[in-house]
Amino acid sequence: MSEIPVPAAPAPDVLRCAYMELLVTDLDASREFYVDILGLVVTHEDDEAIYLRSFEEFIHHNLVLRKGEQAGVAVFSYRVRSQEDVDRAEAYYQELGCETRRGDFTRGVRNAVRVVDPLGFPYEFFYEVDHVERLAWAYDQMGPGALVRLDHFNQVYPDVVKGAAYLEALGFKRTEDIKDAEGTTYAAWFCRKQTVHDTALTGGDGPRMHHVAFSTHEKHNILYICDKLGALRKSDSIERGPGRHGVSNAFYLYLRDPDGHRVEIYTQDYYTGDPDNPVVTWDVHDNQRRDWWGHAVVPSWYTEASLVMDLDGNPQPVTARKEDSEMEVTIGADGFSYTRKDDTEEGFKLGHQV
Amino acid sequence: MSEIPVPAAPAPDVLRCAYMELLVTDLDASREFYVDILGLVVTHEDDEAIYLRSFEEFIHHNLVLRKGEQAGVAVFSYRVRSQEDVDRAEAYYQELGCETRRGDFTRGVRNAVRVVDPLGFPYEFFYEVDHVERLAWAYDQMGPGALVRLDHFNQVYPDVVKGAAYLEALGFKRTEDIKDAEGTTYAAWFCRKQTVHDTALTGGDGPRMHHVAFSTHEKHNILYICDKLGALRKSDSIERGPGRHGVSNAFYLYLRDPDGHRVEIYTQDYYTGDPDNPVVTWDVHDNQRRDWWGHAVVPSWYTEASLVMDLDGNPQPVTARKEDSEMEVTIGADGFSYTRKDDTEEGFKLGHQV
Amino acid sequence: MSEIPVPAAPAPDVLRCAYMELLVTDLDASREFYVDILGLVVTHEDDEAIYLRSFEEFIHHNLVLRKGEQAGVAVFSYRVRSQEDVDRAEAYYQELGCETRRGDFTRGVRNAVRVVDPLGFPYEFFYEVDHVERLAWAYDQMGPGALVRLDHFNQVYPDVVKGAAYLEALGFKRTEDIKDAEGTTYAAWFCRKQTVHDTALTGGDGPRMHHVAFSTHEKHNILYICDKLGALRKSDSIERGPGRHGVSNAFYLYLRDPDGHRVEIYTQDYYTGDPDNPVVTWDVHDNQRRDWWGHAVVPSWYTEASLVMDLDGNPQPVTARKEDSEMEVTIGADGFSYTRKDDTEEGFKLGHQV
Amino acid sequence: MSEIPVPAAPAPDVLRCAYMELLVTDLDASREFYVDILGLVVTHEDDEAIYLRSFEEFIHHNLVLRKGEQAGVAVFSYRVRSQEDVDRAEAYYQELGCETRRGDFTRGVRNAVRVVDPLGFPYEFFYEVDHVERLAWAYDQMGPGALVRLDHFNQVYPDVVKGAAYLEALGFKRTEDIKDAEGTTYAAWFCRKQTVHDTALTGGDGPRMHHVAFSTHEKHNILYICDKLGALRKSDSIERGPGRHGVSNAFYLYLRDPDGHRVEIYTQDYYTGDPDNPVVTWDVHDNQRRDWWGHAVVPSWYTEASLVMDLDGNPQPVTARKEDSEMEVTIGADGFSYTRKDDTEEGFKLGHQV
Repeated sequence: MSEIPVPAAPAPDVLRCAYMELLVTDLDASREFYVDILGLVVTHEDDEAIYLRSFEEFIHHNLVLRKGEQAGVAVFSYRVRSQEDVDRAEAYYQELGCETRRGDFTRGVRNAVRVVDPLGFPYEFFYEVDHVERLAWAYDQMGPGALVRLDHFNQVYPDVVKGAAYLEALGFKRTEDIKDAEGTTYAAWFCRKQTVHDTALTGGDGPRMHHVAFSTHEKHNILYICDKLGALRKSDSIERGPGRHGVSNAFYLYLRDPDGHRVEIYTQDYYTGDPDNPVVTWDVHDNQRRDWWGHAVVPSWYTEASLVMDLDGNPQPVTARKEDSEMEVTIGADGFSYTRKDDTEEGFKLGHQV
Repeated sequence: MSEIPVPAAPAPDVLRCAYMELLVTDLDASREFYVDILGLVVTHEDDEAIYLRSFEEFIHHNLVLRKGEQAGVAVFSYRVRSQEDVDRAEAYYQELGCETRRGDFTRGVRNAVRVVDPLGFPYEFFYEVDHVERLAWAYDQMGPGALVRLDHFNQVYPDVVKGAAYLEALGFKRTEDIKDAEGTTYAAWFCRKQTVHDTALTGGDGPRMHHVAFSTHEKHNILYICDKLGALRKSDSIERGPGRHGVSNAFYLYLRDPDGHRVEIYTQDYYTGDPDNPVVTWDVHDNQRRDWWGHAVVPSWYTEASLVMDLDGNPQPVTARKEDSEMEVTIGADGFSYTRKDDTEEGFKLGHQV
Repeated sequence: MSEIPVPAAPAPDVLRCAYMELLVTDLDASREFYVDILGLVVTHEDDEAIYLRSFEEFIHHNLVLRKGEQAGVAVFSYRVRSQEDVDRAEAYYQELGCETRRGDFTRGVRNAVRVVDPLGFPYEFFYEVDHVERLAWAYDQMGPGALVRLDHFNQVYPDVVKGAAYLEALGFKRTEDIKDAEGTTYAAWFCRKQTVHDTALTGGDGPRMHHVAFSTHEKHNILYICDKLGALRKSDSIERGPGRHGVSNAFYLYLRDPDGHRVEIYTQDYYTGDPDNPVVTWDVHDNQRRDWWGHAVVPSWYTEASLVMDLDGNPQPVTARKEDSEMEVTIGADGFSYTRKDDTEEGFKLGHQV
Repeated sequence: MSEIPVPAAPAPDVLRCAYMELLVTDLDASREFYVDILGLVVTHEDDEAIYLRSFEEFIHHNLVLRKGEQAGVAVFSYRVRSQEDVDRAEAYYQELGCETRRGDFTRGVRNAVRVVDPLGFPYEFFYEVDHVERLAWAYDQMGPGALVRLDHFNQVYPDVVKGAAYLEALGFKRTEDIKDAEGTTYAAWFCRKQTVHDTALTGGDGPRMHHVAFSTHEKHNILYICDKLGALRKSDSIERGPGRHGVSNAFYLYLRDPDGHRVEIYTQDYYTGDPDNPVVTWDVHDNQRRDWWGHAVVPSWYTEASLVMDLDGNPQPVTARKEDSEMEVTIGADGFSYTRKDDTEEGFKLGHQV
């Protein structure tokens, strides 16, 4: 694909990923998943939408569940430093030739700009937002698996190099990536706030949404979520993990909501705020890159993702990845993956696992 | 197979599983695994054997690693209430027609009796033992994954019903089991101390040793062991888990030592000391019985196990299980397993997992 | 005081401490504390009493809150191995000249014996009890501070040596104690189940009830209870801790309920089931005996305790301790306590603390 | 005191608190404390100084222990965004009339500027620094109490309002403070990175250093440090905690090193990166402001602190605080402090505590 030009207009000063708006086909079923099971805090709800936030959040919402005909992602929304930065975002994308719209798209957020970005993702930038009570001290309201922050988005896109150049021009800083000796990039992580990422690009057929991630304080909170799902006989919503990531060093769990939207529960990555923060590059053949404990990634995690919508709510077309697939180069007899880089033969585990 | 008769002689009063003696083919490699990585405490070591204990233990050892020509289990050893109970054990097994030997078989333990039991397993019963320092308060010596107790043994045997009758006659109390609607028993758990088990029978080709289990205080200790194995690039010694068991409700991890002996790291089952402690029976088709989070059991966990030795150190012959195999009835398209008992079709996870 | 004779009749086979019946002056206030805040499970409740159990319990209750004119302890109740052991208990105490009563004293428990024991405490022994659902797997119902077991009682009595002899004759095994170089015993711990204690004697004016203790799975569960009390602006119900005990090596927290009854939240002591389990004796002048981190014990913890009742529900008279007081010999300028046994002068902390 | 003027020169763009240089009187004793007990990573050491870092750090050091005649703080050092920001810092302080020096003051850091700031504290600003291995994945090297980040400094200064104005002009953002109804400010917290603070001002006789704080991943890591100190019979180095802060919502522990320098171990405050992050103001009479669980603050924590040095290594003179003392207005019979704002009488705890 052709490169995306870098606008002459300055990029907006993005603070952080702020919320995702999901289209869900059964609002009651989604409410059960996100409120009754995961315990997100309801800021507001009506017949059309539910506005949710994490316990340490002070802005109106981190997640909007909106009733839709078709499941998908209405928007990936970022907060910027000032209202002027919203204007900057508008000018930036107009110079890129993207359609932009201004307005109050969700309750609690005002004067935002929405755009379908050059990669095909619906992005929003906003500053004005209602403040709500930060429930960081409300321990009486927290369950054992309390979600305390929105941590990051993860986007599926065919050409990670092209997508990365676009995000870096927009002011995102790369923290980690997965490559191979031939120079193929399989995935990359990018931050604005001082964690490993606000968003990431996973190589694959896209544009699609891979997952949205919320943080807990500690690892036992994540284990509890699994225990609770077991008690509710909903363990089949656990797709992968819990485990330790190589990339990001965080502890993780992947769930699938009633529409199949993937949600990560995440804790304990590291500070990345210095401008010379070292980038960590992982070899795609390192078996510990995605799971530090060497567990295989389930195929659905590689292949399934959510559709993303245009500004009218229609699904964006999906383009196939042309470069090598991480799943194909790492699973099976010809994967040539390793746990210890210089090992000449397969280890115990590889020889015995399915 | 024919039933094992119940002796007229009284059974010994067994306190608990006390230690396992493993034959290992490379003492240095085993020392690295059990001492450097897992952090067991060395009570004594010489060129032939290493005597290890857990941090809260006050008897001489919970594990003996002995250099052998062939990997295997030299003995499953139980402590009894008194020296008279050692005599009772000797008489009990003699009445059963088993060969018995008396003596000081390992350093620190005196006047024990060893026997090849009617199932073909090498069992020991002892009372006299050297006391050593209980390091329960020695936090300065504990690593982040400190093993604090020996918890249980697990034995593979073809006929679980027959084996269970023998163990129950010996005074073990059943706490949980896995069955199917046709009456087949796939596995059963038995205790003497007030936890879910001192030993268990796993249906399969046997007699073989499935695993030996040590306890940590908390779940994060177990997660750390995985993180450490990753850091040492030894994640391929992680066979299964960490996860939550359905059976026992404990948090678990299965490792394989350099000889392939399976070690479980285990924490937080429940009190079973009342005589009317309720037995929990699980349906073999319940996907949450072995992993509460619904994760599939890796085939090696079902099929691989350690040989057990006779009193002269030669491997006991292995007999094939004739009843249905838990692995075969639960894995694959015809497994008919479920997460919610009344579901008529496969759930999300089953449809998407390998 | 004179010694308590040892009956010729055999002692009952006590399994464990099973429940305490508390008299409370405001049933609603107590319900808020034990159910809404601490999250104990309600087995049954009516206008007169609330029957509560911990999550891993399978018998009807571990705590009865009964409306009373005056706050106090109606009974310390132990479960025994069989109905014959209830009869043995009755005969045992009758030989001691104690008043005994047989009957169904609380809902769910049948054919028990109650007695005012020779020390003046109301004790009950029972075997027959309703089984209820063991909620060990009901993670969806557990809060972040879930109480999973009743762990122990603690009794205040003037003469610990005399009281200990009585408990040991009854079949309790001493696990730890606090003494001084002159031979005074300040406190002692006794078990039937395989933990550090089912009950303990704390030297002081008595008979009174010092505390009743429930267990959590992990330490973070105890920290959460403090966080929740803070969020509810009820931090003044935290009397002491959280901290690490020297004695028992457990992690602890002491709360006071609305009537001032002391409740300990406790986790992670050690296995004591072997007959030769080593007794740990602590020097009363060791600053780490009651708090391993060296924090001073608040005076109320030493001086305040609940009245205990006779079989008609009237308070038992309290007799003053005549031997040295642990509080007096360890607090203040003349306490001569130490952190390092051979230190000749006070350490940093002692010199600077109030 | 007179206000500090705001320079016309732009303030440097400070990234974060980066390291503290401590003067210690016994390098071996300090090494034992920071390396053997707390487990900080040694980047370099020689006869004069030890350079230490936390496990997730990638710059040369977070703490320098330098042998000195007298204990004190040689510098509070901040990293800035670029070398130009070091020049900006130099110009900024020169305009304020402060003495400045340029150079390589510690191994691994180059071309820094040091200054005695208008409050009398030795401050450093640097950009150029040696990168070292980030040991975030080195779980095999981490102990159970691993310190993973430098979190913040805390400075004692008589006039918090004046000091705050200076820090805010320098670009620090206030996140929380403690005040009373009369308008007195007792303490305030300020951040550059996206946590609750990079530094804080505690009202008191100053300039002095109150503490330097390191983070752990989880609360159990902090509890372990206490357990280890107990095992080493060094519990008297625990001054206060562990506990939960009201301010910052973090879990904390205060230790004293062999020279009396105070070190906080800290975990789990909240994200503060948005420009309109809500400031939390606590009433000085709220008993839960400094300890969410309502425990009294030990007097030494209020009164003791480390001297800070001028650029020649001589102690800065200490000026007494003239405004009300937080300790005096909150401890004792006339403190008028509360747990529930509208309570008219003292609660249980206040009435019974020493």
